[in-house]
Amino acid sequence: MPPPALRDRQSKYLAIPMKEAEEIMKNIGKQMAKNTESLAVSQEILGKIAANFVKSTENMPRTRVSTKDGYAIIANDGSSTKTVIGVSLAGAIYDGVLQPGQCVRISTGGVVPESSTAVVMVEHTICTKKTDDEEELEIQLKEHISTGTNIREPGSETRQGDVIVRSGTKIGSAEFGILKAFGIKNIFVFKKPVITVVSTGNELVSPDCEDVPIGMIRDSNGPQLLALFTEYGFHAIDGERVSDDFESIKEKLSKILKTSDIVVTTGGVSMGEKDNIKEVLIDIGMQIQFGRVMMKPGLPCTVATGRFGTDSLKTVLALPGNPASAWVCSHLFAVPLARTIAGYAKTHHTRITVRLAHDIKLGDRPEYVRAFLEELEEEDFPIAHVTGNQISSNIGSLVGANVLLIVPMKEDKESIRKNELVKALLLR
Amino acid sequence: MPPPALRDRQSKYLAIPMKEAEEIMKNIGKQMAKNTESLAVSQEILGKIAANFVKSTENMPRTRVSTKDGYAIIANDGSSTKTVIGVSLAGAIYDGVLQPGQCVRISTGGVVPESSTAVVMVEHTICTKKTDDEEELEIQLKEHISTGTNIREPGSETRQGDVIVRSGTKIGSAEFGILKAFGIKNIFVFKKPVITVVSTGNELVSPDCEDVPIGMIRDSNGPQLLALFTEYGFHAIDGERVSDDFESIKEKLSKILKTSDIVVTTGGVSMGEKDNIKEVLIDIGMQIQFGRVMMKPGLPCTVATGRFGTDSLKTVLALPGNPASAWVCSHLFAVPLARTIAGYAKTHHTRITVRLAHDIKLGDRPEYVRAFLEELEEEDFPIAHVTGNQISSNIGSLVGANVLLIVPMKEDKESIRKNELVKALLLR
Repeated sequence: MPPPALRDRQSKYLAIPMKEAEEIMKNIGKQMAKNTESLAVSQEILGKIAANFVKSTENMPRTRVSTKDGYAIIANDGSSTKTVIGVSLAGAIYDGVLQPGQCVRISTGGVVPESSTAVVMVEHTICTKKTDDEEELEIQLKEHISTGTNIREPGSETRQGDVIVRSGTKIGSAEFGILKAFGIKNIFVFKKPVITVVSTGNELVSPDCEDVPIGMIRDSNGPQLLALFTEYGFHAIDGERVSDDFESIKEKLSKILKTSDIVVTTGGVSMGEKDNIKEVLIDIGMQIQFGRVMMKPGLPCTVATGRFGTDSLKTVLALPGNPASAWVCSHLFAVPLARTIAGYAKTHHTRITVRLAHDIKLGDRPEYVRAFLEELEEEDFPIAHVTGNQISSNIGSLVGANVLLIVPMKEDKESIRKNELVKALLLR
Repeated sequence: MPPPALRDRQSKYLAIPMKEAEEIMKNIGKQMAKNTESLAVSQEILGKIAANFVKSTENMPRTRVSTKDGYAIIANDGSSTKTVIGVSLAGAIYDGVLQPGQCVRISTGGVVPESSTAVVMVEHTICTKKTDDEEELEIQLKEHISTGTNIREPGSETRQGDVIVRSGTKIGSAEFGILKAFGIKNIFVFKKPVITVVSTGNELVSPDCEDVPIGMIRDSNGPQLLALFTEYGFHAIDGERVSDDFESIKEKLSKILKTSDIVVTTGGVSMGEKDNIKEVLIDIGMQIQFGRVMMKPGLPCTVATGRFGTDSLKTVLALPGNPASAWVCSHLFAVPLARTIAGYAKTHHTRITVRLAHDIKLGDRPEYVRAFLEELEEEDFPIAHVTGNQISSNIGSLVGANVLLIVPMKEDKESIRKNELVKALLLR
């Protein structure tokens, strides 16, 4: 770090547009290694991404089965009255043969006897003859039933060999269920990246500190970002705190980079005389991909990549220390990158259109405004309420937020008005 | 269960409208006990709901701090040239007093000396005098700075005693961060309900079964719904399988109800001769709240409540055995109920408006159509693609779905056309 009088008085880094930053992140994601592993189909695979196409091992259904509770009949056999000759329940097959004028009582999921061509719902029948002990002998159909009615044909939902889970699909309850339904035992999934979070700054004390000296603050960025990754299904390692000292940061990063795919640091990336992170990254041989982004909060957001003497590309996201900046930049850059490495087909947050509850003054940079949604029955768009003071130091602006409004920079107009529509990124 | 000839040939349960079913569920939720506990502020509280209002213990910021890297000055002191008399870094206070024409170099987050009234950004200065070893002696301002510029006043973001986390708020990364920032050690949260999942049906074999006899199927509903609750941050207990036999179900439910708040069963609720669940529920003293809902999939969806000899109200959701029905009804009824008991302010799924990718034929019941979203850059609404054959037995219709389209029943028109807008519930 040069002495104060010789330091840069303007950032040497061009503030690149958000679109460009996102493109760069996409390219980094593509270059970073994706590792896979074979896991048993247990709850452990929930939230992971399938790395192979999984194919069905059999037809679904395997046999013809009834979709209704009723009677298996021969459609168009000339009779609307049927003699009840047996029962086919789910789990207990009737294996006799129907003759015209006969039927077999059947339950939903029951195997349809081979000679039957349709199922009539119990609701569409009346019982016309019974034994003394109330067993059905004969029923009458209340309406005409055509061939194929209420029968699921073998393979009509899934044929043997069909893809049931695509590579790139997140294993949620639905995907887990179909794997279980077909008795799939193992599945290849993408490994999640190793992420480490480090807070930098001489002013930081432990978040558990009781009496914080004046001029110092508790490190909330560390626990907050660890929680953020947990929220998104990633486990991040607590790299704790490091002072602003060049050598201390260098030592810390050098150690962590050996074992991490992604390192997220907060603080030390702006124009202060103790802002050493960019210099350390260069010193240890990382390439700065961008050093500022035209966004608010998060202007000094920095991303660097390098192999660091290993086989695989690693990425450091050096985020500003202001909590709103660190949180927003983690959502916009770190989570999508982690998702890319973890194999997600969809790496970005769902974008929806919302209606503003109040005016928003436009600034000199595009802004990601924290807001929460109110849903009204008769409205096409949810209403977005801004979460108070949007200054980047205000951690309170994050509380309760479930969207980031994408607010453009000031150009022709000074503000967006109440009731206007804006795009928003859905969080969590 | 009466013998076949004497059973009901029409359901005795009126299919109630969805709105009514949702109202009933809301009322049940209100009556069910909410229990709270005090937990240490650790990652364990993530995803839980705050049960108390948490107040800040101090001002944020505590002192006047700089929002920029630059120089603390006295604004309007008549000089645009300032002598550099010291340094105030984040974590290292300058405790001297400024005179007019003097300044103190300061970094973002640094404490602003008492006598200073504004901070000028380093970018808006030039160094006009320095020592031989490159220490700054004097700077010049490139523009006029007014009083208060780039200073965060004490309590300007949060005042001591302000509510920082509201009761009913889900503890996510943002909320976790602010609790840590204020050094909050413990928080009251709502306990989550005890949920047990049971699959019923003579046809069911273990999901791990290798060779499934014809007429039998693997139980995928059990693992699927256990995974569904996990997806939504609830832990459900595996109540495994029970046959359709009245006494077996009675024994199983009686045992589980003693220790569960919510029991979710699948199968046995329709018009088949083995459909015993409703009768068992009545037999053990539960009140059937509804026995059919005008919806697709899930018509026979049944909900019963009762105290079952305990102090607290318990709810059984007896869902149809078809996988799509069980999955959709769990989203629509079970998850919101679990959220209510867990204290969520928002218990329903976020509702958005989407544009259809293809025609949808309307049926004789309102339908929850499984679909996935495609997002287009220039579109106000995401495009919804239906996930294939929507028959309720088709587990494949769930795979990859991230919304349920709310499709009305057939009335004036036969179908909704491609490109029309419909409401959708966002899943996961």
